[in-house]
Amino acid sequence: MSDRASRLAEKLPEIGADLLVVTSLVNVRYLTGFTGSNAMVLVGPDTRTFVTDFRYVAQSSAEVDGDFDRTIAQQELMDTIPDLLPSGEVRLAFEDAHMSVRSHSRLREVAPERVTLVPGGDAVEALRVVKDADEIRRIGEAAKVADAALRRIMEQGLVGRSEISVAVALERAMEDLGAKRPSFPSIVAAGSHGALPHAQPRDVEISANELVVIDWGAELDGYCSDCTRTLATGDLPDATLEAYDLVHQAQLAGLDAVTAGAGGREADTAAREVISDAGHAEHFGHGLGHGVGLEIHEAPRLSQRSDSVLTSGNVVTVEPGVYLPGQFGVRIEDLVVVTETACQILTSVPKELITVG
Amino acid sequence: MSDRASRLAEKLPEIGADLLVVTSLVNVRYLTGFTGSNAMVLVGPDTRTFVTDFRYVAQSSAEVDGDFDRTIAQQELMDTIPDLLPSGEVRLAFEDAHMSVRSHSRLREVAPERVTLVPGGDAVEALRVVKDADEIRRIGEAAKVADAALRRIMEQGLVGRSEISVAVALERAMEDLGAKRPSFPSIVAAGSHGALPHAQPRDVEISANELVVIDWGAELDGYCSDCTRTLATGDLPDATLEAYDLVHQAQLAGLDAVTAGAGGREADTAAREVISDAGHAEHFGHGLGHGVGLEIHEAPRLSQRSDSVLTSGNVVTVEPGVYLPGQFGVRIEDLVVVTETACQILTSVPKELITVG
Repeated sequence: MSDRASRLAEKLPEIGADLLVVTSLVNVRYLTGFTGSNAMVLVGPDTRTFVTDFRYVAQSSAEVDGDFDRTIAQQELMDTIPDLLPSGEVRLAFEDAHMSVRSHSRLREVAPERVTLVPGGDAVEALRVVKDADEIRRIGEAAKVADAALRRIMEQGLVGRSEISVAVALERAMEDLGAKRPSFPSIVAAGSHGALPHAQPRDVEISANELVVIDWGAELDGYCSDCTRTLATGDLPDATLEAYDLVHQAQLAGLDAVTAGAGGREADTAAREVISDAGHAEHFGHGLGHGVGLEIHEAPRLSQRSDSVLTSGNVVTVEPGVYLPGQFGVRIEDLVVVTETACQILTSVPKELITVG
Repeated sequence: MSDRASRLAEKLPEIGADLLVVTSLVNVRYLTGFTGSNAMVLVGPDTRTFVTDFRYVAQSSAEVDGDFDRTIAQQELMDTIPDLLPSGEVRLAFEDAHMSVRSHSRLREVAPERVTLVPGGDAVEALRVVKDADEIRRIGEAAKVADAALRRIMEQGLVGRSEISVAVALERAMEDLGAKRPSFPSIVAAGSHGALPHAQPRDVEISANELVVIDWGAELDGYCSDCTRTLATGDLPDATLEAYDLVHQAQLAGLDAVTAGAGGREADTAAREVISDAGHAEHFGHGLGHGVGLEIHEAPRLSQRSDSVLTSGNVVTVEPGVYLPGQFGVRIEDLVVVTETACQILTSVPKELITVG
């Protein structure tokens, strides 16, 4: 883990900074391993300082990477900064996407005049975007737990159960299988409700002969998984089956396009063209996918607005959909690792349409 | 709900603003009822505008208070602001405790020159601190669910179960009883582990003849509850029983002091003196309590650093503790509503030491 801080320190000259104060808790976790709710990190060429409060003396001692000096603050964490800085002029970068305007004012107030504050950009996020072997292993474990939980749900059947009860059963199955928690609130959306890409599970019974969109994931060891399958609860009209097949083809085209060197926009286009060519352009209203790691949504994005270029070690979702308002929705999503030559799929549930009674 | 926006609008002159842009999602929920993950609100004397993205067309239509105009943004929510502002010079307040430095820069960039940006302080939080009857009812319901869940756990017994399994069972019981989710990660800490005020449940069996600190809460209808009980799993040394009794007496003294007009510091002192007088000052290292509502920790604070004055309609915790490192911890916490003459306790679980085998 300590090489992460070293790689971060190496990037500081690019930002025009001598030191970076990391205040985003997920970035603190990435750099140090600490999982508590109040902490801050200071990183520079020769600086590895972790700061938390008295509540986390024991937890930080157990969790924080040994390369970091630990400081237990007696006051607001920010107020410890002046004591932690080297003498002389210091260019101190901060995480401008995370630090609030008020905290920034406070920092300006407590920091001596010799300190220049510099917006730090997404320096830690830029490291997080490429996962190491251990991270890929953890994400893969989370995906396995999520897959196994869905299999349990499929064995239990869907028809006659409410969307909410299926969602709760799915989440409990994940926990029983070792997940810390769901990585986001599960979606279980039957029939026309499936036409809402972010549907909330309802206290409504799932009927026979409809589609059910299930979008769920596990958080395990800090890392998230994300997957969607659309299941059938019986016979379906040909038009519905065709829509399913279309999304399936689009998803395969998306997977083919996800490889190191490809653009996030390019990958999105590959899947989107399949859907557009079938006349459903307007029914696929979201991007193809997003990065997944310590957070359920992170860089890189796969969409028409993305300017990311995929690199080996990215972990992203590939999740096209077709949503017909008032009728039904189909979404098929895999979680994949980008490699030099292709992508490695972490999801193991089949993508052929499965009928569950 | 709409009177909340009106009361907010009335406060704008104090901030020196014509309009306030609300970007904190919990504050958006408080003002509009919207529970999704991306939204923004603009409030002024004659302005009630709610902005979200395409994913939330249906949900916002169902949830958002009818007094608000709804706008579905085709881009970043912030970028819609210029189109939503009246003509002429505008003093636009923003939530400086929530808006990131980067978002603020973006807002400055997209807003026309005639717009002056003004730090908005905690304008919405200042309203939220006084709960209305409906909010108190919801918090009371959350407390009831949490209490009933603990009773189930006590019936099941503690000895021989791991802290983690008790925490999971408690959380599932709350969900079965109607909670959306736990209002924070439950603490179940036996023996010397109870001496850590923010202990994480371990995969360690609870033994006979020790204390178990259980700190848990339910989230229901958006509102949180918070409660702590310390249970015995058998016979205990006299010194342990005395510590329990001491915390109990301190908690009663704290409750006595929590009334409209009292200071948050004064209430803290009332409980703290009981503990200090018994020679345990150094073993009570946190504040007496905090506000609870849409968030598990909100204003007002009851502590030596608090400058709050309690008012009727505040909902706060009263939770003194004594923590003896390496030995055990005791914390007793009620959730209460502040009234003109006293406080009304929302927690129903008894505070006399209960032994659970």
